[in-house]
Amino acid sequence: MRKHLLPLAALLAATPALPQASANIAAGRAQPSPLAPAEIVNAAPKADWAAIASSDLLVMDLAPDAKGKPRRVVIQLMPAPFSQGWVGNIHKLAAAKFWDGTSINRVQDNYVVQWGDANAEDKAKARKLPEGLAAVPESEYTVPVTDVEWAALAKADAQIAMRAAEDAMAMTTDKPKNSASLAPFVVSDPYAQTNAFAGGWPWTYETNGRASTHCYGMVGVGRDMPPNTGTGAELYTVIGHAPRHLDRNIALVGRVIEGIEHLSSLPRGTGALGFYETPEERTPIVSVRMGSEVSGLPAYEYLSTESESFARYADARANRRDAFFIRPAGGADICNIPVPVRRVK
Amino acid sequence: MRKHLLPLAALLAATPALPQASANIAAGRAQPSPLAPAEIVNAAPKADWAAIASSDLLVMDLAPDAKGKPRRVVIQLMPAPFSQGWVGNIHKLAAAKFWDGTSINRVQDNYVVQWGDANAEDKAKARKLPEGLAAVPESEYTVPVTDVEWAALAKADAQIAMRAAEDAMAMTTDKPKNSASLAPFVVSDPYAQTNAFAGGWPWTYETNGRASTHCYGMVGVGRDMPPNTGTGAELYTVIGHAPRHLDRNIALVGRVIEGIEHLSSLPRGTGALGFYETPEERTPIVSVRMGSEVSGLPAYEYLSTESESFARYADARANRRDAFFIRPAGGADICNIPVPVRRVK
Repeated sequence: MRKHLLPLAALLAATPALPQASANIAAGRAQPSPLAPAEIVNAAPKADWAAIASSDLLVMDLAPDAKGKPRRVVIQLMPAPFSQGWVGNIHKLAAAKFWDGTSINRVQDNYVVQWGDANAEDKAKARKLPEGLAAVPESEYTVPVTDVEWAALAKADAQIAMRAAEDAMAMTTDKPKNSASLAPFVVSDPYAQTNAFAGGWPWTYETNGRASTHCYGMVGVGRDMPPNTGTGAELYTVIGHAPRHLDRNIALVGRVIEGIEHLSSLPRGTGALGFYETPEERTPIVSVRMGSEVSGLPAYEYLSTESESFARYADARANRRDAFFIRPAGGADICNIPVPVRRVK
Repeated sequence: MRKHLLPLAALLAATPALPQASANIAAGRAQPSPLAPAEIVNAAPKADWAAIASSDLLVMDLAPDAKGKPRRVVIQLMPAPFSQGWVGNIHKLAAAKFWDGTSINRVQDNYVVQWGDANAEDKAKARKLPEGLAAVPESEYTVPVTDVEWAALAKADAQIAMRAAEDAMAMTTDKPKNSASLAPFVVSDPYAQTNAFAGGWPWTYETNGRASTHCYGMVGVGRDMPPNTGTGAELYTVIGHAPRHLDRNIALVGRVIEGIEHLSSLPRGTGALGFYETPEERTPIVSVRMGSEVSGLPAYEYLSTESESFARYADARANRRDAFFIRPAGGADICNIPVPVRRVK
């Protein structure tokens, strides 16, 4: 069902637009401290951070840049029960060193960067895939939502609704500044019944299942026309505004946690869909390994989405109260609340 | 008021999640033809396109790239009544050739590219601004919404609500495929009471005023701490997920209609906020002129947001029915419906 505020239409029709001055009356609730989101993250106690296992990391080393600087991209793969068929394939592909010597083949502005075997479509030249890759069905794009999950989401949803109703009854003509504070990590939008964070990742919920969200930096599996779902040999990452219309249509398998600038700043391809038109334009991939196979790799951790610090961070993303801002938004879409990830100090 | 579907919480609480198979029942309405958005745009009749005056264009020529290729960025400035104080300043700055010899100073991944006088903060070295620049008040970040506008928005809103209610009564357990079709260009989201297209641009509406939206490629005015609003001498464009929390907090003055890849693919700055740490990293700006002063500039036009073609395009962006997709989203956020702009054929 489309995200839509039913009582709003009536409210809009009944309330003529007020002049600027009177419309700027604040909602009148006590304001939380005006820390910027990054300040909240920096102040988060160690206990609020969760370790990322090196065996969940995929480390891609591109050829050095024009100045000889190394270019490493670190990807965190998705946890069970999500996309495990493709994630298993990716483990096999990395073990087989499948990607060593392949390349970045497509860079489409405000959309995706894609990599893999540039000759995959040419049977004579295509690399041999390792044995035993799973053919994963489309049903795996989502996982069922349990009754317990729905109940929790519905409760948070009802709390937000109650807060909104209170604001409406208080005849607040301005957008409430704190309506997101109560449950900042449950956000509705045009793409899903609701969205929420759990276990360190953003998820999007429909009655027919939970899916992962195509936010900036998320990594997905290139595929052919349906019912093909891709093997994982061809991967892409989002480098523009979240293409959420891809949710539930393609498998997401992870997210870039370090080095996305080595992908997002590549020259855009001038062919159809941003594919490079000549082999020379492609950026060579030197190697791709599981993090557990890479010596000297730093340890990484993410801010637990179940922590108090994350709740405050998400609230601050939805309601910027630091000095630069004059009007907090009163909300944030889920892709504007990136889960903080850092090297372990 | 926060965008939120009140009846949904009740519906979710009452309806346990159904298994995948039965949840995939379609909404049962006749499906429009499965053209991709770009196909609809390409088929749009000439009458559905509106000319962009060259006097509304700002043409920025960067120094050629490492291979000697020219890098031109074309920006369309915003029409009245929006941001006209800053737009007037930009006309004066271009006439004074203020930006010639300045540079791109900041490239922050998934956020913005910013340009202007790199020494603006250093009074001894700063370029002299032309005489007569307006100091525009913060109240100009929005323009009042008329009762007629509200009535039209409320009507569209009510139509969408009715369609959603019909879907709910039909006991559709899956997300309706066509709920956005009726009024695809009015979309709610966490950032505003509603959002809609008008006159070729995306707008975001609150009772306290209409503002422009920080979508990918939009151009805004860098500023210091409030109540400073900036002059227009320092400009930025969005190169990542739409930072909608900036709406109503900073002036937007236009959008990049050609050449954004020359900005979005620049190396990211490694200093705070993505500023370059050394002058050598900055990309020189050779010249910035109004389009009416540039000989040989192509003519541009945009797909009228009031046209039937745009309605079909927006609907297709919200409901991808072309062969690659297996599940149309049933909605789109306003920044995922970029207004098509092209060179006049």
